[in-house]
This record gives sequence, structure tokens and C-alpha cells, in this order.
Amino acid sequence: MGKKYIAGIDLGGTTIQTVLTDEDYNVIAKAKADTLAKEGPDAVIGRMMDAIDQLLKDAGLNRDDLIGIGLGIPGLMDIRNGVSVFAGNLGWENVQVLQPFRERFKVPVYMDNDVRVNALGEWYFGAGRGVKNMVLLTLGTGVGAGIIIDGKMLRGPQSAAGEVGHTIIVEDGPECTCGSRGCLEVYTSATAMMRRCRELMMKNSDSLLWKLCDGDIDKLKANMVDRAYDEFDSVARQVMNETAYYLGIGLTNVVNIFNPELVVIGGGLSKAGERLLGPAREFVNKRAMVVQRQHYRLVTAKMLDEAGMLGACTLVKENIDSVVQ
Amino acid sequence: MGKKYIAGIDLGGTTIQTVLTDEDYNVIAKAKADTLAKEGPDAVIGRMMDAIDQLLKDAGLNRDDLIGIGLGIPGLMDIRNGVSVFAGNLGWENVQVLQPFRERFKVPVYMDNDVRVNALGEWYFGAGRGVKNMVLLTLGTGVGAGIIIDGKMLRGPQSAAGEVGHTIIVEDGPECTCGSRGCLEVYTSATAMMRRCRELMMKNSDSLLWKLCDGDIDKLKANMVDRAYDEFDSVARQVMNETAYYLGIGLTNVVNIFNPELVVIGGGLSKAGERLLGPAREFVNKRAMVVQRQHYRLVTAKMLDEAGMLGACTLVKENIDSVVQ
Repeated sequence: MGKKYIAGIDLGGTTIQTVLTDEDYNVIAKAKADTLAKEGPDAVIGRMMDAIDQLLKDAGLNRDDLIGIGLGIPGLMDIRNGVSVFAGNLGWENVQVLQPFRERFKVPVYMDNDVRVNALGEWYFGAGRGVKNMVLLTLGTGVGAGIIIDGKMLRGPQSAAGEVGHTIIVEDGPECTCGSRGCLEVYTSATAMMRRCRELMMKNSDSLLWKLCDGDIDKLKANMVDRAYDEFDSVARQVMNETAYYLGIGLTNVVNIFNPELVVIGGGLSKAGERLLGPAREFVNKRAMVVQRQHYRLVTAKMLDEAGMLGACTLVKENIDSVVQ
Repeated sequence: MGKKYIAGIDLGGTTIQTVLTDEDYNVIAKAKADTLAKEGPDAVIGRMMDAIDQLLKDAGLNRDDLIGIGLGIPGLMDIRNGVSVFAGNLGWENVQVLQPFRERFKVPVYMDNDVRVNALGEWYFGAGRGVKNMVLLTLGTGVGAGIIIDGKMLRGPQSAAGEVGHTIIVEDGPECTCGSRGCLEVYTSATAMMRRCRELMMKNSDSLLWKLCDGDIDKLKANMVDRAYDEFDSVARQVMNETAYYLGIGLTNVVNIFNPELVVIGGGLSKAGERLLGPAREFVNKRAMVVQRQHYRLVTAKMLDEAGMLGACTLVKENIDSVVQ
């Protein structure tokens, strides 16, 4: 019997990332393609499957060489039945995802949400290697969490656990996309930080940020905030510190609830690095309980955008192993 | 070989509760004794061991009939080494708890914190029977949580997980005993509710509560608030609704993070029943995410003060089973 291979896909609102690995998760080949969600779920799923076929072909392999496929999908899902229940940024509602893969490739296919496969990637291959209790917080368009407890991913009976981004941290805070108010996400997503930054820029015409975005506030990017921060720009400093303050609240809560060894910050904002993590860590050191704060580490994600597709690959062996037991 | 028995103890700041059960957790005998913490840890541990000996004697059994002992202890602890690291209401610091029991009884002895044995009791024998994902929130002197995920107690590497009472829900709220500010405990402990009630009574000389406590505000008890609430007393109504509002925030966060099947409210305040749970449930139904709120139930604890000592008994078989595996 020859060597066997695993395909993993991280499906995002704009990009499909696909990887082919061997059973030890060594990368054989990888590819990026546009999601083109507007063409509908059949087209997107078709493109995902084509991407796997293409990688197999490029590597001189056949479908028979696959041992299984793992998928990371955004939104709400029914993992057991392979259904994407609702994914706003794809326009999906009750889409049967796994069946087409099973029919074409005749191997086991598994799915999980995008944040959890991201956490699996960081846990197996990135910042979380060797750790048994870890929380990944992704600060991107929204705020997501992948929580690993005693070596096992927290999913919950409806696969809906981990919504740390929608915990209320300010009792009467602004509205959140989830329908609630004062959620952590309202204060610490990349979206929130950029919105706050533009607010402050409107009141500070002499901010360096105006120069960095060529006077066009719509062209403002997170890396410009990092640059202005390094130049001691007061708007950038204030935005970063405010975001770190609220991140500190979220981290305090996570650390007190889970007593994790490691908290990993991922998503777009993680590129701010210690600019953001430094003051957040100070907050936790003041506000979290003693034992919990003494025994956790706070770091940024290491895997960048490869975490998701590689984490998706780990679903295959995890599930096969659990069936064998 | 004869039948075997388990002893369980729930150690509190004022009372030691001890139970003797058979291997199926049928209660053979039980007893209450004063903790008398002032006499020091040796005396307290001595009284705990004497209580077990007395129950064995009363039941016509010997130490040889025991299969193991489980202890529920307040405060911070190092479960693996059997040490009570810090227990404020006992005045304990770095007390070796398990060794004296092992020496006297020559059986396996296990410990866990008081909230978690309480949760184990409710899970095995009370409101949580048959459920695999449950959170017990105790609203008493403080606010504690016992969290069961996929049939396993969440403890964390330092046994310090579950401090939901010390999650920040109001960014600039009042100081908490833990050193932080705006913790859930500041708003939803029995202590907090009674403090708030007395505050409002001072401004409302015509509240029925003054009559119920015979004009002596120091004699105010939680059950008086329940009675006044039922008589539509405005102070009692306001206090209950405010407490329910903050409990609603805590529950929203718990439900969004854990996607539990069941949340059980225990501790002194649970006696308020639907007066408290009704409005808290309404809050969750508005503010928690759809899937999570549709798939959880909110109930009061069923086991009253027997949960802890019976939960402590379950530690024995849980640990023996895990060693056998």
C-alpha cells in the first residue's frame, strides 16, 4: 500500500485555500482561488472540489491516494449532517456541503467552522504546539474563538460553542451585529478598531494617519495604524490602547473561565503584535485572578493564513481515530 | 467480598456535611457538624475524619468496608498533591488535606473545590441527570461555576477554571473582592443582592421589607425579599429585577461560550425561583445567539445542600475508573 494523503480547505468569503499533505501533515502542494460566492453554493463547492483534483494532478496523484478531506467553513453549521446552516458572507442557508465531496472522492469528509480549524492549525503546527489547554481569539471582521480543553476542541452539542466575541462586556454598550449590545466584538474586531480610528481622525486633522492614507480615509489600513503608532501619533496610540483595554477585559474573562496555558491572538489585528498585546497583558496582570494570570502566556498566531487549511486536514485523522477507538 | 462504601464530605466555612453511600450512591447515613475553623486545620480535618468513623460505626461498618473518600473543599487548591492552597473563609494556607485521610483510612482519597462537587451532585443526582453539557452557577456569598463539557468536568491545569463569577460584565463597575472591578459576582451574589436591597430600603421607609424584618435591617433575609416581591413591594421588585438583569448578562455569556444543554442556578438566591429566573430567561432570549438560546434550559438546583457531599462521593469512582482505563 502506497503513501496516503489528506486534502484540507479553508473556505473564506473571498478566497478558497486548499492544501494537500501527507499523513504527517507535510505540505505536498497548495493553491488559492477566488470564492466568487455570488455564483452560488454549487459553483463554490464545485471550485473547492476542482482545487483538490488539481492539486492531486499537480502532485502526480489520484483520488485513490486520498485518505480523507477536511473543510473549514464560515458561519453556523450542523457538523454531523454536513450542512452549512447559515453563512452570511457566503449567502448560504442550509447548504449540504459534505455530500458532493463524498460522492466525487469516495473518502471520509469532515467539516468544522473556520475559527476552529484555525485554532487546530495553530495548535498542531503553530503557537500552540505541545499545549493541552489553549484559546485562540481571532480579531478580524468579527471576533471568534477556538477553545481547546485538555487536548480536545470545545464544540458544544449544536457546534455553537466558543462565541467569546459575543459575550457582553459593557452592560449598555453599542449594538452588535448579533442583535445584542456591548459584545466584545463591538470593541476588539479589526472592523471596530478601524471605525474608531476614522472617528478620531475626523477630530484630528494633524494626525500622521492622514498622511499615510494620502488624505483618503477610505484607504486607511491596519498597518498604517501600526506605523503611526511607532511614530507616537496620538490618534494611533489612543486607538491601540483603547482596543487593548477591551481586549484585556475579554482576556481576563477567558483566563478566569478556562485557566488556559496559552492564549493565541490571531486575525488581522494580531499583526499589531506587542503594540496591542503589551497593554492587554498589563490589564490581565491587574485584573485576572492570581493563579490563572500566573500560569498563562499570551502570544500572537504563528501560522498566518495557512492555519485554517492545515487545521482542516487534522479533522480527518481526529475523526478516523475516534471511530477506531 | 462484601458490599463496598464511599464517604463524601462537603466542607464549608460553618458546617461539615458528611455522607456514607454504597457504590450505587444510595445514602446509608449522613451527619452535620460545626466546622469551627478557628481551631485550625488539624482540628477541622480531625473532625472530618471522626465524622466518617462515626457514620461507619452507626452503620455497623468498618474502615475496611470503604472503597474511597471524596472531599469538597472551598478555595484554591492543588488537587493532584492534595493541598488546600488558600481558603479565605477557613483561614487555610497550604494545608495538606488528603494525607491524614489516607493514613487513617488506607483508601484512595480525592478532593475538588466546593462548587465543582456541588455541580457533580446536581449532575449525577439532581437537575442535571442525563445531560452531558451543563453549567451550574451558584449565587451565594460569592458566585461560582461548575462546568461540565461533553460529560467531563472543566478543571483547568491549575484546577482554577470556572471562575465565571469573576468575569467582567461592566467595564467600570464597583470593586470586587478579587481585586478586579465590575465582576458578575459584584451584581449577582446573594451578598450583593442583600446589600442593594438595604440601600434601597434606606430610601423607602414604607417598603414592606421594613415590616418583615421588624424594623431591624440587620435581620433582613433573602426569603423576606421573596415574600415582599410576591406582595408587589416596589423595593423587592426592583432588587429582584436588577439582579435578574445582571444574571441575564452572565447567562448570555455562558450560553454563548459553552452552548450548554442546561444551566442550573444554585446557591441561596436560587430559592427565589422563577422570580429571579423568569426575567433572566427573558434577557437571554433577547441577547444570546439564536442557536444557543434555543437549545438550553434554565432551572434551579434540585439537591439543596446534599449536592456537595454526594458530588464528592462521585470523585472516588470517577478517579478509580480513569486509573483503570
